Amino acid sequence: MSDSAPAEVTAKADQPPTGKLSGGPRRREHTLSTAGGLSALSLDALSSVAYGPEAMMLVLIAAGASALRFTLPITLVITGMLVLLVISYTQVIAAHPDGGGAYAVAKQDIGPRTSLLAAASLVVDYVLTVAVSLAAGAASLGSVFPALAHHLLLVALTGLVLLTVVNLFGISESAKLLMGPTVLFIVSIIAVIVVGALRRHPVAVIGTSEAPFHATEALGLVLILKAFAAGCSAVTGVEAIANGVPQFRKPRIRTAQRTEVSLGVLLGAMLVGLALLIRVHHVVPRGGVTVLAQLTAAAFGTGWPYYVSNLAVTLVLALAANTSFGGLPVLMSLLAKDHRLPHLFYLRAERPVYRHGIIALALLAAVLLGAVEAETNKLIPLFTIGVFVGFTISQIGLVRHWRRKRPPRWRLRAALNGVGAVMTAVAVCVFLSTKFLEGAWVVTIAVPLMMILFWQTERYYAEVASELKLGKTPPHPRKRQSIVIVPTSTVNLLTEQALCAALSISDTVIGVAVAADEKEAQHVKRAWDEWHPGVPIEVLVDPHRAFVRSVVRYVKSIQKEDLDVTVVVLIPEIIPRRRRHEILHNQRGRLLGAVLKSRTNAVVATLPFHLHE
Amino acid sequence: MSDSAPAEVTAKADQPPTGKLSGGPRRREHTLSTAGGLSALSLDALSSVAYGPEAMMLVLIAAGASALRFTLPITLVITGMLVLLVISYTQVIAAHPDGGGAYAVAKQDIGPRTSLLAAASLVVDYVLTVAVSLAAGAASLGSVFPALAHHLLLVALTGLVLLTVVNLFGISESAKLLMGPTVLFIVSIIAVIVVGALRRHPVAVIGTSEAPFHATEALGLVLILKAFAAGCSAVTGVEAIANGVPQFRKPRIRTAQRTEVSLGVLLGAMLVGLALLIRVHHVVPRGGVTVLAQLTAAAFGTGWPYYVSNLAVTLVLALAANTSFGGLPVLMSLLAKDHRLPHLFYLRAERPVYRHGIIALALLAAVLLGAVEAETNKLIPLFTIGVFVGFTISQIGLVRHWRRKRPPRWRLRAALNGVGAVMTAVAVCVFLSTKFLEGAWVVTIAVPLMMILFWQTERYYAEVASELKLGKTPPHPRKRQSIVIVPTSTVNLLTEQALCAALSISDTVIGVAVAADEKEAQHVKRAWDEWHPGVPIEVLVDPHRAFVRSVVRYVKSIQKEDLDVTVVVLIPEIIPRRRRHEILHNQRGRLLGAVLKSRTNAVVATLPFHLHE
Repeated sequence: MSDSAPAEVTAKADQPPTGKLSGGPRRREHTLSTAGGLSALSLDALSSVAYGPEAMMLVLIAAGASALRFTLPITLVITGMLVLLVISYTQVIAAHPDGGGAYAVAKQDIGPRTSLLAAASLVVDYVLTVAVSLAAGAASLGSVFPALAHHLLLVALTGLVLLTVVNLFGISESAKLLMGPTVLFIVSIIAVIVVGALRRHPVAVIGTSEAPFHATEALGLVLILKAFAAGCSAVTGVEAIANGVPQFRKPRIRTAQRTEVSLGVLLGAMLVGLALLIRVHHVVPRGGVTVLAQLTAAAFGTGWPYYVSNLAVTLVLALAANTSFGGLPVLMSLLAKDHRLPHLFYLRAERPVYRHGIIALALLAAVLLGAVEAETNKLIPLFTIGVFVGFTISQIGLVRHWRRKRPPRWRLRAALNGVGAVMTAVAVCVFLSTKFLEGAWVVTIAVPLMMILFWQTERYYAEVASELKLGKTPPHPRKRQSIVIVPTSTVNLLTEQALCAALSISDTVIGVAVAADEKEAQHVKRAWDEWHPGVPIEVLVDPHRAFVRSVVRYVKSIQKEDLDVTVVVLIPEIIPRRRRHEILHNQRGRLLGAVLKSRTNAVVATLPFHLHE
Repeated sequence: MSDSAPAEVTAKADQPPTGKLSGGPRRREHTLSTAGGLSALSLDALSSVAYGPEAMMLVLIAAGASALRFTLPITLVITGMLVLLVISYTQVIAAHPDGGGAYAVAKQDIGPRTSLLAAASLVVDYVLTVAVSLAAGAASLGSVFPALAHHLLLVALTGLVLLTVVNLFGISESAKLLMGPTVLFIVSIIAVIVVGALRRHPVAVIGTSEAPFHATEALGLVLILKAFAAGCSAVTGVEAIANGVPQFRKPRIRTAQRTEVSLGVLLGAMLVGLALLIRVHHVVPRGGVTVLAQLTAAAFGTGWPYYVSNLAVTLVLALAANTSFGGLPVLMSLLAKDHRLPHLFYLRAERPVYRHGIIALALLAAVLLGAVEAETNKLIPLFTIGVFVGFTISQIGLVRHWRRKRPPRWRLRAALNGVGAVMTAVAVCVFLSTKFLEGAWVVTIAVPLMMILFWQTERYYAEVASELKLGKTPPHPRKRQSIVIVPTSTVNLLTEQALCAALSISDTVIGVAVAADEKEAQHVKRAWDEWHPGVPIEVLVDPHRAFVRSVVRYVKSIQKEDLDVTVVVLIPEIIPRRRRHEILHNQRGRLLGAVLKSRTNAVVATLPFHLHE
């Protein structure tokens, strides 16, 4: 029953590929409406407007405040790409009504190597979604409460700890619960755009300084491309709906496609609207306050609507981070089922959560946040690459899918996805070339490393499977002689319990003790014989009274004598009532067990003895 | 055979109370001559001259350089105390020819509570000996190689790591090996004193600045007492010989007493000699160079004798730190044998070393060194308290010993030790009152905390012992029915091996698998029946396919059905050839084992399956 590779090869996945791997909650409700789909699967995409435009502006401002005039044109280009992506993903929905992310698509339609690339990109994507969303959320909170502005790392890490704990306990997210914050967020952003376009509050009322950024670069194509690359972070997450199609209400494909289009329209409108507002109000990135917060202040002033709106942004960013906690552990469990990660990643104990995956995600995100001190814009160069690799793989997979299936108008469909794939692949090249030194190199190292890790793990498990002759019927089991050895030192209740258990499982039971010399050995034998348990005792003499070594040597000698005997070493173990008392017990027994397992073929049996005091 | 309290109650200590608990190496050679005794048991005391006088001067200089004129008088007072201590300890030697430190004396002659105080003080003493010796050794090395002077913490921690590794591997110290450095050290110091008294090199050639310390305090009684307290660190370690009497050549008591007196004479002469030299040369404490190094330079100039002499000092300080590695782990093992520390502290695995004690000592010393950034003088206020508490306890014990035994001239003996006890007790009060805020508070918190820890541990083990009815003969063991459960998922070589072992130890063997629904259950049953292993299978249906929970529930149901049956759960475990592959295997099996142990009374048996490729 070992959970090693072979034992699980034929077991079916007990968890369908949902999550943000398909973007949303893990419960399959089959009842998502368009609005529900937006809440459950699009928070990651929608919340991108909180950091995407600002990331772009921070690149442009390196060439001086006047360069910010390119904000609107670049946003329009990105919105154009968004349109193509949305069209492309409505196709993905039609082609893969069972959902499944880039990993599943690549495994099915392209090949194992590409699926490794997809998996590695997705891991990077999930980790960065958590880090970026939390960093942006902290920045948003810092805009509202300036006291927090100097402790963004602390705020982000606190959020991370909260999310981790909540997810370790297991949460049953529901689309209905998410609907409130989502609606509030969308209404806030639209209100900011509409009200902000109509009236003008002074913008300079918030933030630390007028113009903290100095022109350091010339405005040129490279800078524009960099700004585009940074701005593309605003369209991350649009793949989620396509991956969660099974969760939608019937007719599934239609509902999902409608949701995807709604997301596209909403996201596009918000991006363009905010870009227009930025131009109208001449907003400039400032320290201690986000661009979005400045726009909110410009529209509402700094009264309660300002607070409500910014807190909604913070909340939605935190929920976006939470989607990764739904997604990455599930992806890791799928990788583990494919023998590409240690099997412990699909191990669940008391609670139905993949805690190893959750902890891995939390640690990786914490390292990232710490490395950049929770500055969103330092993470952006790393972020978009993984997402766009996923976009590209999904669409290449789809082109192959259409060519193979040849449904009506397959050429048009393939062309659409092909254009999409080329576009996103070009975007990846742009990201890599312009942002390499600013952080993209991390991804170019991490992704191949992870691919090697997955591949090595898979190969190792395959070797083990062949050694265990998996798939072949093993010989019939047969009964052998058995000897039970009970290590002991003094006669007490524990010894008696151990002998009871030993006698129950074998007719040949031997007590074993260790003494420093013959005299002590005689003493031990006498005490044993006085008790008269009906079981012989063997006293091993070792001048150093080295217990573990002596017992191991004895077990080896027995196994050498008779190869066809099952040797069982029965070790009683005290189970204290309180966990913290564990350190006071059993170390020698555990040590003996561990050494026996690694050095001999003996069965190591542990008899628990529960304390009641 | 569990190593819980009761199992060891009657076992004899397999390690006599030697070590620096008795100050020296752990091998009992029974052959120490006076010179050998000085090398093996007095390094800690002798090396104190490297930091004691300087610690005193650093206190005095707070009242200006002129206050340094008190160096000699205070040294004379301390030397007077040394004389009384040496006389007192020659008595200890006569009274306790079997050795044993303050802990053993207090346990035997005073009572359990005082022995706890002695133990806690000794722990503090050992840890501080390591920290102080390494810090002083680093300072000494930094005096010779100024490049190291700014990295004293690094130097000290490197030394600590080296000592820890060497001790984890186990070393067989020998007095002969230690004799070389000891002789070199003593000769160096005496040469410094003699040569320094005869000729004068310019002192100011080494060190960073002329007078880096500014007068900040008025000269008064408090300052003098503080200087006395700091200087007392020079007499730490004189107890070691008395604790190591069994190691001496016959006539043991005479040899040991002669060694103690030799130590007193040597140490006293060095202290007074150095104090005289300090006065003659007007030496002032300086940054980056120790007082002893300045004196050496004054005597020899900065040629090769300067290097040899200082390196001898460094070496002897490192060896002094090493004596604690011989002592504390042994003390902790004795405390563990008395059930006052977790029993794991007397657990030894492959090598005959108490690695848990060694690691505990290394960690504590590292924390201390880090906290004071390896500045010797910040550790001094913490150091002497523990040592002098030990002095006091030993002598009070001796007074009681004389009163009970009433040998010839017992009144004189008791008076001598009584005076000694009062003197050291007063010294403790002086240390505490003058140095409280400078670090002594750490000790006043640490010691009671440790006493509580020891006491609580002892009480806990006593409760466990009573629950195990220790000391009473248990009932006779009797045979019961047994059922072996073999959790499995698919039929493979591992299953076959597990069934072989299971059949060997019981006639009733049941395979157990978990399926998500009836259909899957039928499938598993069919595969099993096709193999036809001659063992029935029970397929547990659980919609979540929760393996661990289902198996535990099944085991509980069997135990409920028949209380008089021994249930064994046999779990195969893959043992990979390389240790790093451990993470790829067995997590589910281990989880199942752990949950079974904590929730049921079932015997958890593990069958190791060794991979070969």
